[in-house]
Amino acid sequence: MNASTPATASNATLAGSAEITGHPMVLSLSCKNSRGIVHAVSGALLSVQGDITDSKQFDSPDTGTFFMRVEFTTPESREAVEAALEPVREEFAMDLGLWEASRKTRTLVMCSKDGRTLNDLLFQQRAGTLSVEIPVIVSNHLELQPMAFFYGIPFIHIPVAKDAEGNSNKAEAEAKLLDLVAEYDIELVVLARYMQILSDDLCRKLEGKAINIHHSFLPSFKGARPYHQAHERGVKLIGATAHYVTADLDEGPIIEQQVQRVTHAQSAREFVIRGREVEGSTLSRAVKWHAEHRVLLDGKRTVVFD
Amino acid sequence: MNASTPATASNATLAGSAEITGHPMVLSLSCKNSRGIVHAVSGALLSVQGDITDSKQFDSPDTGTFFMRVEFTTPESREAVEAALEPVREEFAMDLGLWEASRKTRTLVMCSKDGRTLNDLLFQQRAGTLSVEIPVIVSNHLELQPMAFFYGIPFIHIPVAKDAEGNSNKAEAEAKLLDLVAEYDIELVVLARYMQILSDDLCRKLEGKAINIHHSFLPSFKGARPYHQAHERGVKLIGATAHYVTADLDEGPIIEQQVQRVTHAQSAREFVIRGREVEGSTLSRAVKWHAEHRVLLDGKRTVVFD
Amino acid sequence: MNASTPATASNATLAGSAEITGHPMVLSLSCKNSRGIVHAVSGALLSVQGDITDSKQFDSPDTGTFFMRVEFTTPESREAVEAALEPVREEFAMDLGLWEASRKTRTLVMCSKDGRTLNDLLFQQRAGTLSVEIPVIVSNHLELQPMAFFYGIPFIHIPVAKDAEGNSNKAEAEAKLLDLVAEYDIELVVLARYMQILSDDLCRKLEGKAINIHHSFLPSFKGARPYHQAHERGVKLIGATAHYVTADLDEGPIIEQQVQRVTHAQSAREFVIRGREVEGSTLSRAVKWHAEHRVLLDGKRTVVFD
Amino acid sequence: MNASTPATASNATLAGSAEITGHPMVLSLSCKNSRGIVHAVSGALLSVQGDITDSKQFDSPDTGTFFMRVEFTTPESREAVEAALEPVREEFAMDLGLWEASRKTRTLVMCSKDGRTLNDLLFQQRAGTLSVEIPVIVSNHLELQPMAFFYGIPFIHIPVAKDAEGNSNKAEAEAKLLDLVAEYDIELVVLARYMQILSDDLCRKLEGKAINIHHSFLPSFKGARPYHQAHERGVKLIGATAHYVTADLDEGPIIEQQVQRVTHAQSAREFVIRGREVEGSTLSRAVKWHAEHRVLLDGKRTVVFD
Repeated sequence: MNASTPATASNATLAGSAEITGHPMVLSLSCKNSRGIVHAVSGALLSVQGDITDSKQFDSPDTGTFFMRVEFTTPESREAVEAALEPVREEFAMDLGLWEASRKTRTLVMCSKDGRTLNDLLFQQRAGTLSVEIPVIVSNHLELQPMAFFYGIPFIHIPVAKDAEGNSNKAEAEAKLLDLVAEYDIELVVLARYMQILSDDLCRKLEGKAINIHHSFLPSFKGARPYHQAHERGVKLIGATAHYVTADLDEGPIIEQQVQRVTHAQSAREFVIRGREVEGSTLSRAVKWHAEHRVLLDGKRTVVFD
Repeated sequence: MNASTPATASNATLAGSAEITGHPMVLSLSCKNSRGIVHAVSGALLSVQGDITDSKQFDSPDTGTFFMRVEFTTPESREAVEAALEPVREEFAMDLGLWEASRKTRTLVMCSKDGRTLNDLLFQQRAGTLSVEIPVIVSNHLELQPMAFFYGIPFIHIPVAKDAEGNSNKAEAEAKLLDLVAEYDIELVVLARYMQILSDDLCRKLEGKAINIHHSFLPSFKGARPYHQAHERGVKLIGATAHYVTADLDEGPIIEQQVQRVTHAQSAREFVIRGREVEGSTLSRAVKWHAEHRVLLDGKRTVVFD
Repeated sequence: MNASTPATASNATLAGSAEITGHPMVLSLSCKNSRGIVHAVSGALLSVQGDITDSKQFDSPDTGTFFMRVEFTTPESREAVEAALEPVREEFAMDLGLWEASRKTRTLVMCSKDGRTLNDLLFQQRAGTLSVEIPVIVSNHLELQPMAFFYGIPFIHIPVAKDAEGNSNKAEAEAKLLDLVAEYDIELVVLARYMQILSDDLCRKLEGKAINIHHSFLPSFKGARPYHQAHERGVKLIGATAHYVTADLDEGPIIEQQVQRVTHAQSAREFVIRGREVEGSTLSRAVKWHAEHRVLLDGKRTVVFD
Repeated sequence: MNASTPATASNATLAGSAEITGHPMVLSLSCKNSRGIVHAVSGALLSVQGDITDSKQFDSPDTGTFFMRVEFTTPESREAVEAALEPVREEFAMDLGLWEASRKTRTLVMCSKDGRTLNDLLFQQRAGTLSVEIPVIVSNHLELQPMAFFYGIPFIHIPVAKDAEGNSNKAEAEAKLLDLVAEYDIELVVLARYMQILSDDLCRKLEGKAINIHHSFLPSFKGARPYHQAHERGVKLIGATAHYVTADLDEGPIIEQQVQRVTHAQSAREFVIRGREVEGSTLSRAVKWHAEHRVLLDGKRTVVFD
């Protein structure tokens, strides 16, 4: 949800004085930890009649970095708020993001043949329970095109293949993808079981802007057929991991992990089926948090203000 | 753990300038929501060279109440910090609590015959994973006295019974308990499966200072033999609820709930055994949060800043 | 999954001798507990060269009823197996069911306006991860018709309303439903958030053949707006319950229950959103078990051989 | 629990005819899968008036092995039952175990300095919720001796150290352990965070008779300081794995796994604390299942009939 909704509601209950009839915004920032940050930020917000409805902070002992996410309402314009924060941003050399809370994250979804996770994402974005808009879907296969049609979203087929000489068209395919990212003003790329490995170059270009669902419980069982590896190993829990894409395959910062119980009586195929379930909800959760600007990067780890 | 530990560590990593070698403190407050609270609080902390290491807020849409918990380090004394906060407390008419983070909550544990939850609590407090000290244990039975001895904690037997005329000594028993609360400067009373129902009067006197573990999943299956009720109903999950004690039996604000999976193949007795497990960890979790000043009251609900 | 798949596979690995190239079947039975049942059943199966691949039993201490589910492969026809079992069925006065494991349960889904759980069911039945076929969908509203079209399933609109005189057409609506149940040879009716209360008469007619998802954690928070009740109560876990429909509203035998963690920071609306998630997977799980003949009735409880 | 309890109860409810007033026994077996096994076993039990109260089977597709566990009551002696089963055992070349259900597994617990898991085990065995008796505790340190005294269990200190020349006394230490295993008729050795690595030779001698708790989520984060590895990796779930000891360190067959949620805000130390919790309940669960003869080996995997 957009957490500022209830806050607005609450303020309304407080005999809504004029200034509280503002619009909800989200601020997230990180900088080297030092004293006075909170005071400076809250002061800047106060200067634009900002009413803080939710705020979370974390001071990372490992990196000495300070993280903060603030939801607030203000009658002032986005520009005015930005201007008020600028001196603070400068003083503390902050990485700072500022968004209208109601604004949805423009998201490109990449998929292949398995529709389970795509289906979860599309249903939720249409139901309005996921703060994303999905202007375009990309796939290297055609199987899921009807689902895209059903949800009224353009589906672009970018096949990846090798020719007779064994030369892959991967480079062109990735170039096309980047064109789409630019053309559609994409802020987030979600790999909903897109089974191709992205080039290091593409991973770098999408750093912090692409989320992958790993169909197993990282850091174990990396690579191919993890459920079959897990089944062979006789694990009693299987899981899924949603993480940011990095050049280092399957080593990106983890956003969310979930597990499901399994038993000896279930086949590897059943592991896969149960795995799909948990993959879908794990990826949706991660996309939701990212789209609500709740995920910040702390070195190789994530700070999740859920 | 005491969450300010890592923060201190982190500060240490920040090339510890003199003022950061302070002592960790915890501040929690609630007041009617309005603008400028965060700025005022952070300003007061800044004035005592407070370095905020963790801070969480919540603005309750249902009650219009603002809640805040701050961990910070300061080189100043507790008194100095209190003085710096006083004008803020007054301006916003705050309920405000201020503690040394390292200070343990003085806790009196009441038990009866079943030692599982008592055992969990005593082990953890001795292991130092629970920020409580337990100066005295009270029971209406003698079964658990050896455990108290093992942990070197005074065990006081306050039997509750009816005499020949059917007059109960409950009133005197509760009076004795209150004497102990006063004598030992008790800040928290934990009912670790103390099977007696407290009088409304005692509940009121301990309001917000007594935690009970309900051996079932509130609000269902209240009252006697809940696991047997649950077994009869054929539930697939059983749970436990840790809540503050109120005059309204089993209706106190919920602090923590946990569940465990059960099947048709398990007897009511097995439900009880599995229930004990989840009771122990649920109560320990609730006591831990309370002792770290993470639990605030929002009407009939709790705000848990974990 | 159809648990006999791996078994067949395994048998294949055992240098498939002729008799093992049979077809997988499922047998489920219950009767008053007495000695010799297992021997009699296994003897009957042996007489049709049945190869038991999975078998589970339960002897209910509460009702004195014996329950058994057997998966086996046989080269003989369904009729031959039935004939072989007939004397056993008679001797022990068994309730007995016998199915081809590959046969899908003919299921009618009823829905209203919220598509989340319907979407889960339809996707899974098409993906083949749910052993049901859905020949028809019934709704008292039109919102979900496009989804039915997408999955290529007939959608029948049976509005339920009151006329000017306040007379409801509920009786006719339920009559129509029963006609459809007959017309389409329906074995299972799934109420995927169909928000109408069925008449006692209909409930009785569908006894053991209709599954409902209760959008909360039975037995607590029955009736209307349970998530809002839960939110008001400040619970830390919300859940969903899939149960058989009985005349006694929300009191039917429980098949499956699942929970999700919530916090003070989430609004009642967010409770609903998270609730939908858990409802979908809880209902799918219950339908899957029922369709695989894993659920037997033990008085007001269920025996689930998962 | 001892699953035969409810069964007996149930039989009692069945107007206990003479033959049912027997004693509960547990039979577990495995053999190459073929037809007629169930019929043969049930026939043998019938011949000793065995009343089957619970029975579970599994036919492993991966190894072609058939597994079965039966709980039954019989008026006949253990010897009589064994004799009745002998021909069946021979015919199918079965690995077969037969126990009085009420008989507790003689267990030796090894520990080091951390008492959390030991405390769980000792409390539960005394509470009677774990079907084990613990005649002796072994440790390479003295820290936990008081706990052993409290529970009235002999505590034997077998230090493991290197002398001035760097020669370890490990060989003698392990020899002493094996002497104790023989002296006390030990059937199960539980490594309750015994931090020494056992020699391959000892592992082989204890194969299938020793359970270890791995303080992390296998197969990831093997070896030293797994929680710190996990913290560094930024995982969102930590877990514990209880497995049989094999020469291949941390690669033994997995019996049980459990997880706990963690966040960025928790330090590695807090990971350890939460980890201890889940370790304790994971190990107890595994020991409980083993002691109730619910765990069978299927190659490198376990079949758990819980």
